[in-house]
Amino acid sequence: MWIDLRSDTVTQPTDEMRQAMASAEVGDDVYGDDPTVNRLEEIAADLLGKESALFVPSGTFGNQLAIMTHTHSGDEILVGEDSHILMHEVGAAAKLSGVQTRSFPMDIATDKLKKMIRDDDIHVPRTGLICVENALSDGRVIPLSTMKTVYALAKKQSIPIHLDGARIFNAAVSLDIMASEIASCADSVNVCLSKGLCAPIGSVLVGTCDFIAKARKNRKLMGGGLRQAGILAAAGIIALNEMVTRLTDDHKNARYLADRLEEIESCRVYRDRLDINMVFFTLSESVISDSALISGLHEAGIKISGKEDGEYRFVTHCGVSAENIDTVIQAMKNIIANHS
Amino acid sequence: MWIDLRSDTVTQPTDEMRQAMASAEVGDDVYGDDPTVNRLEEIAADLLGKESALFVPSGTFGNQLAIMTHTHSGDEILVGEDSHILMHEVGAAAKLSGVQTRSFPMDIATDKLKKMIRDDDIHVPRTGLICVENALSDGRVIPLSTMKTVYALAKKQSIPIHLDGARIFNAAVSLDIMASEIASCADSVNVCLSKGLCAPIGSVLVGTCDFIAKARKNRKLMGGGLRQAGILAAAGIIALNEMVTRLTDDHKNARYLADRLEEIESCRVYRDRLDINMVFFTLSESVISDSALISGLHEAGIKISGKEDGEYRFVTHCGVSAENIDTVIQAMKNIIANHS
Amino acid sequence: MWIDLRSDTVTQPTDEMRQAMASAEVGDDVYGDDPTVNRLEEIAADLLGKESALFVPSGTFGNQLAIMTHTHSGDEILVGEDSHILMHEVGAAAKLSGVQTRSFPMDIATDKLKKMIRDDDIHVPRTGLICVENALSDGRVIPLSTMKTVYALAKKQSIPIHLDGARIFNAAVSLDIMASEIASCADSVNVCLSKGLCAPIGSVLVGTCDFIAKARKNRKLMGGGLRQAGILAAAGIIALNEMVTRLTDDHKNARYLADRLEEIESCRVYRDRLDINMVFFTLSESVISDSALISGLHEAGIKISGKEDGEYRFVTHCGVSAENIDTVIQAMKNIIANHS
Amino acid sequence: MWIDLRSDTVTQPTDEMRQAMASAEVGDDVYGDDPTVNRLEEIAADLLGKESALFVPSGTFGNQLAIMTHTHSGDEILVGEDSHILMHEVGAAAKLSGVQTRSFPMDIATDKLKKMIRDDDIHVPRTGLICVENALSDGRVIPLSTMKTVYALAKKQSIPIHLDGARIFNAAVSLDIMASEIASCADSVNVCLSKGLCAPIGSVLVGTCDFIAKARKNRKLMGGGLRQAGILAAAGIIALNEMVTRLTDDHKNARYLADRLEEIESCRVYRDRLDINMVFFTLSESVISDSALISGLHEAGIKISGKEDGEYRFVTHCGVSAENIDTVIQAMKNIIANHS
Repeated sequence: MWIDLRSDTVTQPTDEMRQAMASAEVGDDVYGDDPTVNRLEEIAADLLGKESALFVPSGTFGNQLAIMTHTHSGDEILVGEDSHILMHEVGAAAKLSGVQTRSFPMDIATDKLKKMIRDDDIHVPRTGLICVENALSDGRVIPLSTMKTVYALAKKQSIPIHLDGARIFNAAVSLDIMASEIASCADSVNVCLSKGLCAPIGSVLVGTCDFIAKARKNRKLMGGGLRQAGILAAAGIIALNEMVTRLTDDHKNARYLADRLEEIESCRVYRDRLDINMVFFTLSESVISDSALISGLHEAGIKISGKEDGEYRFVTHCGVSAENIDTVIQAMKNIIANHS
Repeated sequence: MWIDLRSDTVTQPTDEMRQAMASAEVGDDVYGDDPTVNRLEEIAADLLGKESALFVPSGTFGNQLAIMTHTHSGDEILVGEDSHILMHEVGAAAKLSGVQTRSFPMDIATDKLKKMIRDDDIHVPRTGLICVENALSDGRVIPLSTMKTVYALAKKQSIPIHLDGARIFNAAVSLDIMASEIASCADSVNVCLSKGLCAPIGSVLVGTCDFIAKARKNRKLMGGGLRQAGILAAAGIIALNEMVTRLTDDHKNARYLADRLEEIESCRVYRDRLDINMVFFTLSESVISDSALISGLHEAGIKISGKEDGEYRFVTHCGVSAENIDTVIQAMKNIIANHS
Repeated sequence: MWIDLRSDTVTQPTDEMRQAMASAEVGDDVYGDDPTVNRLEEIAADLLGKESALFVPSGTFGNQLAIMTHTHSGDEILVGEDSHILMHEVGAAAKLSGVQTRSFPMDIATDKLKKMIRDDDIHVPRTGLICVENALSDGRVIPLSTMKTVYALAKKQSIPIHLDGARIFNAAVSLDIMASEIASCADSVNVCLSKGLCAPIGSVLVGTCDFIAKARKNRKLMGGGLRQAGILAAAGIIALNEMVTRLTDDHKNARYLADRLEEIESCRVYRDRLDINMVFFTLSESVISDSALISGLHEAGIKISGKEDGEYRFVTHCGVSAENIDTVIQAMKNIIANHS
Repeated sequence: MWIDLRSDTVTQPTDEMRQAMASAEVGDDVYGDDPTVNRLEEIAADLLGKESALFVPSGTFGNQLAIMTHTHSGDEILVGEDSHILMHEVGAAAKLSGVQTRSFPMDIATDKLKKMIRDDDIHVPRTGLICVENALSDGRVIPLSTMKTVYALAKKQSIPIHLDGARIFNAAVSLDIMASEIASCADSVNVCLSKGLCAPIGSVLVGTCDFIAKARKNRKLMGGGLRQAGILAAAGIIALNEMVTRLTDDHKNARYLADRLEEIESCRVYRDRLDINMVFFTLSESVISDSALISGLHEAGIKISGKEDGEYRFVTHCGVSAENIDTVIQAMKNIIANHS
């Protein structure tokens, strides 16, 4: 049994989820006939405080579907400079929706954002959408006050806001508020059922009834009209109903992991980005090379991702216990000792 | 329990599939870590005689992914004038891949097709792809000889062929040949695991290793990179291994349904389009109106789709037995009797 | 001095046009400051009976700009199966505007067209535009009654119509009506200033004020925002004011050319497509090969295009007199005599 | 006669240009038959040290054509954060070419640029093109050494570079080198014939023969295939042959304008951005409001653009003499005196 610190996307469905999938009542969801999908969508809309919801195959799918549905081809969208949408969705926004991306710093200085909104001028595209992310995938959570300020600005200019809420429940747990409070600062939100919530597949996009009706047709266009999707929705319902509160454990474990990493020589943890279930840190190449650490841990039954821009990211989730963390730290110490 | 003649997309997963899904060994397929997905892809590639395969969320997804992967934006693709790709995929080819569609008759007169292929001229787009379909969704199966002629033509001009093989196994059963023989007349094939094969969700796209590697990245771009997809692949494996031979029953039932429909006054069955599990027929409005038939059958526990272009389409599948067909015919006779 | 029968696009600007270009009052048209452009646009709008007009660099530009402005990406547009837009604009509609093309026969059977308009259904794109062409580039002119019927159908369904009126004045002359009568059967029309009207460069797109305002921004996006465009507009004004009536000569010469071609053995003129300034005919390969005819005429100072789909097209224009036609016929007779 | 400081795009063609246009030898350039266009393209290729050249209708057209020709839809392109391509081309790159834009600071820190180039990873788009600009439209010129370093980096990674050289001759004059030296740091360059060089319409795109051949077809697709374009090329030839050296006067006048502006109270000129024919400066609202300055100068026969991001931009060109500058300064002083 591996200890896998690469991402919370590696989480396995729980036994309860497997049971629910096996016994799910299903129908053809393209005809709107799947009762389990319908139920999941109701639950998600309620939980996020929106009128309507739509099951989609992945987080990237949900974000790109939202972009396609909010904008017209030829619009410009404003996105965070390190956001998942700009950095890790294969450049989809331009190809699928024909929109130009322009980026703002992740911590969103509202006055800078304001200057980026386009005037009505023949030389410039319309600002069609602002995309925000919370929690950020750099480990931080954006304060609710910032979300509110940005939303007020956008409303004033009649520009919709889409929230990439892949880890909105991590943000809510970190801020100790309801997810719906965060969602209230956006016109649409995409929420992942996998990752920390452990469902095997799927996300839910929420918004107004009108928006979701349009998104439903665009989902078909993008090839996301599934048939007996209740199989997956059954796991999704458990994810939303029962797995959210346990995210506090992942956050606690992340902080524990951070504390223990600091025992290691030259290991510098980014404590200002320790809001959720991710620990970012640096480790000098002189102490241990990237490849030596990866292969050493692999031999010890531990999977990690290599450094990106000089940083390691270790992610906690329901498959990583405090005991596992002790194992990881001990293994790292051994590897470093053997390499010096 | 409804008798549902609208489409074979309404099929429910079998108990064996449900069991397999509940106990599937899974991993994060974006990392290539899902053993069940990997096994499904091997089985599909073998069965269709291609080097490699890729699990995708739907038939539309697979077709559009193939188009995106074969072509460059700005190309023209040749498609059947009543094909699923042109008629029922929401215009996706132009929006997602930027390719122009030009259509040929469904029965593919090769000389006409040949004339449609573009020269190298500054005024015209490159012919980037030819899309064929087999079985056709109008109930017919294209003979292998036609497929071969078209493929030879395309090869001579270095134009790839994509086969929408949503019902390739129905075609193979009808022609009494291996599906791989049909697939050998195309560079890529998309095969549905749902429909007659009863898996709840998913298709498989097959082709060369190089093509599938490119498609894998484009799948991510289109939002089809799933996580623990082994849940769905587990049902897909059963679909491919155990559900293909039973399609003969659906075809037999379709012919039985056709015979019995002809007992009804003014009911004219298209016997030239009775190759698979679909029965197309007309019924005079003077005998019974469309809405009266739909609602009458609905009351009798039977779901049908309304007339399209003046024709009814009744579809047989594993949820429709010969006995069910008797029930349907009796119900139709009663409704007509009561309305006259 | 060549006799050039390849196309009416080869026409040279007249001396009057050259003088007007040299002395044109100009300004920066992106700022709206070019008085000559503004005057051309007024004249064109008046002549076609529309509210507003926009100068564009070419016929393809005007058609594609109209498509971009009328539609949303993801729409389907209905186009003639041999239309310039589908066949000779490099597949631009899909690439630039993301719209799917579906084609109807050039002579427009209205009932068939009606069936092609899409319902409101999750599986199908919206029908965003119908494109018609008059005169056709196959030599025919569509009767006004057909134009009216199609327009009525489109209005009923709230679908806009764009008319590719590259040769609308040829159509008007042939039908002996005002161009504005034809234009009244469309929401937008693109009219070429070059071709038979002899301006060196440019077309004009006409429509409502609202439509042209949107098109003006899209023109900038497509790179068609020109600066001191009054230079070209000056020639365009002469084209519209003084060159339209002389198209009757081109039509007369085309009929004269047809008569004389029939003197040649095995030469079969398509008399049913002799409405404007184009003569389509076949000539048996056994009489003279395509390459021999082209090179023989070239030596005699005559340029023609080679056969397309087995047909020759000879085009008359202001650079082709009746005397020139006699020269062409004599040259053809000589070449054929020498080759037999 | 207005003094127009809004832009150098307002320049009028010279008498010599008008004469050349009136007497230009022309042909149908879509057939490659226009001798004057062919000559312009040869001259431009030679002057920029590239194999081949293509006449295009505008600077935006040339830039977007280059992007379309270098990239595949779905690529990412790196562009300067205040570049014309990102900021003032109506978001065309995403709509026309389906490429995602990501931006770097205008002064191009090479190490930052290097980090922005994408790895080969399933989550990220390919880096398809780097776009640089010289001179910048903020008044600065990028040193040749920086251009060389960026080009070396791009070559190492096999990424093409496109140079928006709308004002490349201003840059060359400022750096006191040949334009071809700047052009040697890019695979393609777009050069404007209008602006400081005074041709009424048009740009030239230069690059390898292979690149230009592809661009020629894409130019047709974008609607930029013109007919008797020799009319415009005739002026373009004069622009390239005779108007480049006079740009030194514009630069000298810009510096003179800067000196004189500093006589005005609270007027702060950005001397670090005074490399070409543009003067950027601020003027306190307490001294004179934006609208009062615009309207006051307008009454005095002087056109200016309003503040953008708090800055004024005055542009010198062949229609602005030192004497005109004295008139402008005097008018500004009068207006300010009258408003205090």
